Amino acid sequence: MMNINEHLLRTFEARPGEFLSGEELSATLQVSRTAIWKHIERLRQEGYEFEAVSRKGYRLVAKPDKLDVEAVLGRLHTRVLGRSIHYMNEVDSTNNVARELVQQGAQEGTLVVAEQQLAGRGRLGRKWHSPKGKGLWMTLILKPRIPLHFTPQLTLLVAVALCRSLRQITSLPIGIKWPNDLLIDGKKISGILLESSAEEENLNYVVAGVGIGVNLLPDDYPDDELRAKATSLAIEAGHTMDRSEILVAFLQELESLYDIYHEQGFGPIKLLWEALSVSLNRPVTCQTPKGLAEGTSLGIDESGALIVKLQDGTVTKWYSGDIQFSS
Amino acid sequence: MMNINEHLLRTFEARPGEFLSGEELSATLQVSRTAIWKHIERLRQEGYEFEAVSRKGYRLVAKPDKLDVEAVLGRLHTRVLGRSIHYMNEVDSTNNVARELVQQGAQEGTLVVAEQQLAGRGRLGRKWHSPKGKGLWMTLILKPRIPLHFTPQLTLLVAVALCRSLRQITSLPIGIKWPNDLLIDGKKISGILLESSAEEENLNYVVAGVGIGVNLLPDDYPDDELRAKATSLAIEAGHTMDRSEILVAFLQELESLYDIYHEQGFGPIKLLWEALSVSLNRPVTCQTPKGLAEGTSLGIDESGALIVKLQDGTVTKWYSGDIQFSS
Repeated sequence: MMNINEHLLRTFEARPGEFLSGEELSATLQVSRTAIWKHIERLRQEGYEFEAVSRKGYRLVAKPDKLDVEAVLGRLHTRVLGRSIHYMNEVDSTNNVARELVQQGAQEGTLVVAEQQLAGRGRLGRKWHSPKGKGLWMTLILKPRIPLHFTPQLTLLVAVALCRSLRQITSLPIGIKWPNDLLIDGKKISGILLESSAEEENLNYVVAGVGIGVNLLPDDYPDDELRAKATSLAIEAGHTMDRSEILVAFLQELESLYDIYHEQGFGPIKLLWEALSVSLNRPVTCQTPKGLAEGTSLGIDESGALIVKLQDGTVTKWYSGDIQFSS
Repeated sequence: MMNINEHLLRTFEARPGEFLSGEELSATLQVSRTAIWKHIERLRQEGYEFEAVSRKGYRLVAKPDKLDVEAVLGRLHTRVLGRSIHYMNEVDSTNNVARELVQQGAQEGTLVVAEQQLAGRGRLGRKWHSPKGKGLWMTLILKPRIPLHFTPQLTLLVAVALCRSLRQITSLPIGIKWPNDLLIDGKKISGILLESSAEEENLNYVVAGVGIGVNLLPDDYPDDELRAKATSLAIEAGHTMDRSEILVAFLQELESLYDIYHEQGFGPIKLLWEALSVSLNRPVTCQTPKGLAEGTSLGIDESGALIVKLQDGTVTKWYSGDIQFSS
């Protein structure tokens, strides 16, 4: 059964551009005019915009950009990934919700996607800005059949799938910065945060958090600092994009690479990562436990570590951290 | 302030072997005779045994073996490990309690130890039999400063520390079966279960569960199957042992190896593990994802995997599983 909000929306949508009087709406929906007014206010809080003119009534002028989950499920041709979608308006962090779901027995491929994250997290304990309706803020539950020490390979796999699907849809020159940030012209458009849980050498599960800045405009960033470092697909392409199309493309690409990974191992993924990377064969610096290190990035190893030739000629590996490109 | 149970126990302990009348106890503790009777019943439920003779009163004949936490803290010379001890009478699993504590912000070195586990868990989803007062059923919270993919080294480190401390105290011929079971003459006296949580390549925490069969006697095993596979220090040594002494020795040995590991890496730990292992240079079989495999164990690698020469001459690695010795 439709609730009154939905019924009200359908009524407006059936007569686009028209003013509907409180009297007429009250008669159609069989509720009082005061109730109509309350529901219009509620819809306004959800992002719907109404014009109200006395004696004429209300007119729907704008709808919030809500992810169309029905459309996603209708177009999606995956076997496992995204077959179950938990769509939420607002969460603290989709990774937290996914971790709770997995404790309750959620299956592999379960997707949590939210219009807004109030406490979205990025790598290295950083905040992740996730404004309402402007991006894809989501987490996938994965239960890969690999030993624990291969887990870092997964984070590279997710970055490759995301980079390939976004390039395909947008044709933008997107590259991967080690280990898993996606950049356009040095500005970040997406980040990945994998959290894993293991018992001895057996991986129990991974929650793979992915944030994509899809339709943010310059005003959607809270300050100049973030505006200088981050960008969105809409800013780069010059027009807004359909988030459901991006989600479908990403899930399909990820499932296909995930299957290849289980069948053939890390080899093909490593090749793709290196081909899409903007981090290789150039001078880089990194804050390591031993202080600031400087060198030239040569490649990645089987554990996803960055192989770096330091200035004194020795070759070392960086396992985690935030690299900067020096020139 | 002492509660009535404690007061009652002190009164009995002050006059060992004597009968104390309900009347006298009632006068001493300033409570009714009915209250005395109720408290004696409560103590009986905790494992204290009283002889009751009409007209003479009650006599304390046996006390349950409770771990003396005060004695542990008094003797312990560690810097971090076991400085905070959560002692519990009964838990589902000490690993579960430790995981909850770490979520609430518990520090590295926090120890959970229980007299009894109702749902103790072992490797590969197995049950772990943890009867009341008969063993050390415990979990340590560790926050090692190592990348995620080194986690399997920790499980070997814990096995080495446990093996060395038990050998030192008992002089029994205890060996390590890959990866981390402790055996005497092929029978298991202890098991280890590490659970880890990571964010990307950074280990958040490890809960290291350790079960040691200290004072179990043959009747303490639920069935012949377990009796045939498991043993205890008391059975092997021919006398019961002080659990607090074993706990202190283990924590001190573990802290000292843990410090060496952080300073010098896995090298020294690997040497010790190999020296204490009963798994090397002998025919072994293992149920692997590809079926039952047979070969000769050659050593372990940096990731804790067992290096095995298969019957066809190829050398492979087993990352997890349960090896059997063939002959």
